[in-house]
Amino acid sequence: MRIVSGMRPTGKLHLGHYFGVLINWLKLQDEHDCFFFIADWHALTNRYKDTSDLKDNIREMIIDWLSVGIDPQKSTLFIQSGVKEHAELALLFGMFTPKSWLELNPTYKDMKFNLFYQYIRDFLYGKQIKISEEILRDIFFHAFYHKREIDFKYLKNKLLELGIKEDYVRHIVKTISEGDIGKEIDTYGFFGYPVLQAADILIYKAEGVPVGEDQLPHIEITREIARRFNNLYKEVFPEPEAILTETPKLLGTDGRKMSKSYNNAIYLSDDEDTVTQRVMTMKTDPQRIRRTDPGNPEICPVFINHKIFTDEKIVENINLECRTAQIGCVDCKKILAKNINRFLEPIRNKRVEIEKDISEYENVFIEGTKKAREIADVTMKEVRKSMNLYEI
Amino acid sequence: MRIVSGMRPTGKLHLGHYFGVLINWLKLQDEHDCFFFIADWHALTNRYKDTSDLKDNIREMIIDWLSVGIDPQKSTLFIQSGVKEHAELALLFGMFTPKSWLELNPTYKDMKFNLFYQYIRDFLYGKQIKISEEILRDIFFHAFYHKREIDFKYLKNKLLELGIKEDYVRHIVKTISEGDIGKEIDTYGFFGYPVLQAADILIYKAEGVPVGEDQLPHIEITREIARRFNNLYKEVFPEPEAILTETPKLLGTDGRKMSKSYNNAIYLSDDEDTVTQRVMTMKTDPQRIRRTDPGNPEICPVFINHKIFTDEKIVENINLECRTAQIGCVDCKKILAKNINRFLEPIRNKRVEIEKDISEYENVFIEGTKKAREIADVTMKEVRKSMNLYEI
Repeated sequence: MRIVSGMRPTGKLHLGHYFGVLINWLKLQDEHDCFFFIADWHALTNRYKDTSDLKDNIREMIIDWLSVGIDPQKSTLFIQSGVKEHAELALLFGMFTPKSWLELNPTYKDMKFNLFYQYIRDFLYGKQIKISEEILRDIFFHAFYHKREIDFKYLKNKLLELGIKEDYVRHIVKTISEGDIGKEIDTYGFFGYPVLQAADILIYKAEGVPVGEDQLPHIEITREIARRFNNLYKEVFPEPEAILTETPKLLGTDGRKMSKSYNNAIYLSDDEDTVTQRVMTMKTDPQRIRRTDPGNPEICPVFINHKIFTDEKIVENINLECRTAQIGCVDCKKILAKNINRFLEPIRNKRVEIEKDISEYENVFIEGTKKAREIADVTMKEVRKSMNLYEI
Repeated sequence: MRIVSGMRPTGKLHLGHYFGVLINWLKLQDEHDCFFFIADWHALTNRYKDTSDLKDNIREMIIDWLSVGIDPQKSTLFIQSGVKEHAELALLFGMFTPKSWLELNPTYKDMKFNLFYQYIRDFLYGKQIKISEEILRDIFFHAFYHKREIDFKYLKNKLLELGIKEDYVRHIVKTISEGDIGKEIDTYGFFGYPVLQAADILIYKAEGVPVGEDQLPHIEITREIARRFNNLYKEVFPEPEAILTETPKLLGTDGRKMSKSYNNAIYLSDDEDTVTQRVMTMKTDPQRIRRTDPGNPEICPVFINHKIFTDEKIVENINLECRTAQIGCVDCKKILAKNINRFLEPIRNKRVEIEKDISEYENVFIEGTKKAREIADVTMKEVRKSMNLYEI
């Protein structure tokens, strides 16, 4: 089966990426004809303003992928913007993609929420106003989510309560309110990213796309675009299936989902000491205050992560010893830190090897991009012919 | 000055195109570095459903342009879809183009009006319901224009008054009303055509764009996109100036603006007899019923066209003789027909020559496309570098 999947280069990858995405890619590459790409054009949809770290992020992603074992011998690894045909196909798809499909896309609302949040956070941080991301996110969640309209009154009051200058609050409200709403962040490219995504997938005639549950609506748009093309012109594209993948539950140091923006992540590139330090600061069962208190592993982020990194038998022991206060959190964390480091060790070794000659590994992606382009070119010839476009 | 202008290949060109656009291009090509392109991607924005005549229309356009004297020795003539870089640049421009710029574009509303109109006309004609385009257009104009919302009640009543089956009227209203509105015609590509247009122009760093008054808002979006790019990344693009051109007033056989959709046009490719026939059916001053009635040349389409095709002195004579009933409409039309044919004769001769070996002239455009692509490529390298994109 031909499989296509991509990742936005927004910074170094953490364990959440590994267990959410890469672990599946590693399985898929053994069984299928996989195309994995660095979605640098997609990174622009919501980060067009400051692109100064784009190249570094791509290099970081190359190292991260190769160090975990994504294998260019097995799969085609490439950089999206190197295959201009994606842009051409997206342009053509756009011609017959109703705006309403994009407006109804539920993740459009989600992403809009995130963009608003990021915009406001960056604005405040730019003004040297350091408010915890957690607090800020909660406010915006309450103001925006599950509502048709943004609750500006709520937003304004909450921001003022935090002691933010009235001038700034007024500016924020003005920027995101009707009229100015989206002027900065609700762009044509952002609105149309599912069209580009459809082109990314269909240009390789992918039959499968590994996704999480939350991305199902995107794949649905891709399938609709394939159907519409086939109906309007000629049967060119398969309708790719979503490959739903279950991922083990992994938590960040604060007990929430691991995420760069929560500052709770352990990175694939972290060294041994950093990992140990991060694990030692992890939240545990808040009810267990003293060493002698019995703990509840079910709600303990450390324990939940043990299930991924620690041998089953030892996990069982820890479960019992925590509930009976035989093991303390510090010791429990030390075991976890050791096991995460053990897990990361081969990845780190590979990383050292890659960093010795990064240009050689960049070349792997350049070669992959050339290969991808050849295949994309064949599809485009078929597309142009089906649409009666002039072939030059 | 570098000048860029394009034309959608929607069918053979008529005198309206000549005096509205081509006559200016002929002047510009002598003084400036002109890039004229066949905008086949743009033709898809509102005609994506049936592309069967696209190639013929492109060939027709090649013949029309060359036969009037657009000169590949002086200008770069090319086909838009042959320069894929336009799509890449449009994609990148889209990332930072606020949706609101496109929504506020006044011509977006105009084009939407035209698309609705065409959709409904095609639907009715498909059902073998032949209603004069004039009547239909008037109804839609009243229902849509100068209103925020479409006046569905008015539309429904008027269509029923015309004797159209209730089923069909319900279908039409449903299709264009909320929910289904735009599903067929209000597409992502159509919405974003000014972004593609900005790419068409800016990729050649054009400093001038010849336009009619109604296209000024487009050029404004192009200028805004250039400014925004220059501010966000690096000073790459000039802000092109609109070259406003006065065009002589030319009327179709029914006295309205010459247009394919009014079926009132005289084509550059019409033969002598066809031209004479068309001119003989032209509307004249409706008050002049008998040969002996004096006429009013000011409101006579035949006379208005005389001003373009007939020597000034003879125009003066006709003016007097019409007002005094010394010349009849038939004779007056014969003079006009003769003069239009005289005007078209060298164009026809050139056309015969071109049609003898059309592939040779297609090659002119293929060569032009290659040249355009080289220049576009240089700009794109600069663009990618400014945006910190990875260069492969």
